[in-house]
Amino acid sequence: MPYVLSLSGGLDSCTLLGNLLRQCDANEILCVSFKYGSKHNQYENEAAQKIAKYYGVNFIEIDITPIMTCFKSDLLLSGGEIPEGHYQADNMKSTVVPCRNMIFASILAGIAESSGASTVALGVNCGDHAIYPDCRASFIYSMNKTTQEATDKKVKIIAPFLLDTKETIVHFGMKIRSPYHLTRTCYKNQEIACGKCGSCIERLEAFAQNNAVDPIEYEKEVVR
Amino acid sequence: MPYVLSLSGGLDSCTLLGNLLRQCDANEILCVSFKYGSKHNQYENEAAQKIAKYYGVNFIEIDITPIMTCFKSDLLLSGGEIPEGHYQADNMKSTVVPCRNMIFASILAGIAESSGASTVALGVNCGDHAIYPDCRASFIYSMNKTTQEATDKKVKIIAPFLLDTKETIVHFGMKIRSPYHLTRTCYKNQEIACGKCGSCIERLEAFAQNNAVDPIEYEKEVVR
Repeated sequence: MPYVLSLSGGLDSCTLLGNLLRQCDANEILCVSFKYGSKHNQYENEAAQKIAKYYGVNFIEIDITPIMTCFKSDLLLSGGEIPEGHYQADNMKSTVVPCRNMIFASILAGIAESSGASTVALGVNCGDHAIYPDCRASFIYSMNKTTQEATDKKVKIIAPFLLDTKETIVHFGMKIRSPYHLTRTCYKNQEIACGKCGSCIERLEAFAQNNAVDPIEYEKEVVR
Repeated sequence: MPYVLSLSGGLDSCTLLGNLLRQCDANEILCVSFKYGSKHNQYENEAAQKIAKYYGVNFIEIDITPIMTCFKSDLLLSGGEIPEGHYQADNMKSTVVPCRNMIFASILAGIAESSGASTVALGVNCGDHAIYPDCRASFIYSMNKTTQEATDKKVKIIAPFLLDTKETIVHFGMKIRSPYHLTRTCYKNQEIACGKCGSCIERLEAFAQNNAVDPIEYEKEVVR
């Protein structure tokens, strides 16, 4: 089992899974989704499960909601409304879940060591870094070093899209026929994507920049 | 709230709590215990709760047992027998829970950021490092850097006993009248300490080196 992959159900980790499968067999990847109490959690985990099934890879869901009872973020069910507007905007900062990626990566590293996997793969990319400190390249490099310390170099962390934009990822994903129709991006607590939150807007832009049509359904007519 | 302290119920974190209380008030410390499915978990969490009550500090218990279903370790209820003998011995390696400290520290950092605490305090010390990679100084330094990256320098990790031995910690703890009668160290799934596992042996040695009597009860007559 070379890889443990954090599969969120979004574009990035879906593309990463397709990319890893060009290098190894389906039974060599364990995909993990986290149940952590975000408003869109149910929908993204369902998406992750569908993507894992599509590719025939191992899949587990881990419930860490008891941890999150102490956390404050509008992304969580316990928080306020999901803001609308562009991702870069200051108001999207309220959706940061403190240290979420660090917590995910630590757990994935422990699962990797327990299951004999050498590598934790994350879909973190350049588009994430502005408001999420634990998505920046400097965090990932540091987290990789820390993970190697924690595991006596048995486990490392990779983030192959770290310096890529969402546009580039979608460009690459379309080439390898990523099943984007199965993915989920919207932050809101509703089945159909809203098309208005920062997460939806960024996704739609990435498809538009590729002169492509986003294959998922949106709540209202959106420019795509 | 300056401090979030990982309070295991053992000697080290009990001593650290007493030490922090020389620098700040009881309401400035949040103590966190983890329920993670180890054989001695129930007993050590009860001890932690008693210690927190003794000092009048805030206390929460966080359940992360769903994470541990994927982990292999004899320390866990799902694992084999707890080995007996000296801590340094190879057989105690089976009690390592992969990345446990890294997972704990990541969660504590998230709680710290959410509650406005600037510092996560860990009782990690020199006696731990031999078989636990994520208790070594090199790990703690790296984890501190990673945590600062993940929180935009809002949270740091300290481990004031990092270079101290268990003997030194007990020496210091006796000076500040740490309530060692409330602590729990034994790894076994039984209320009364066994006196034979690596954890008990190390504890007994630390008291003996200080010409002191360990105030807790042991299953059988032990040299102390």
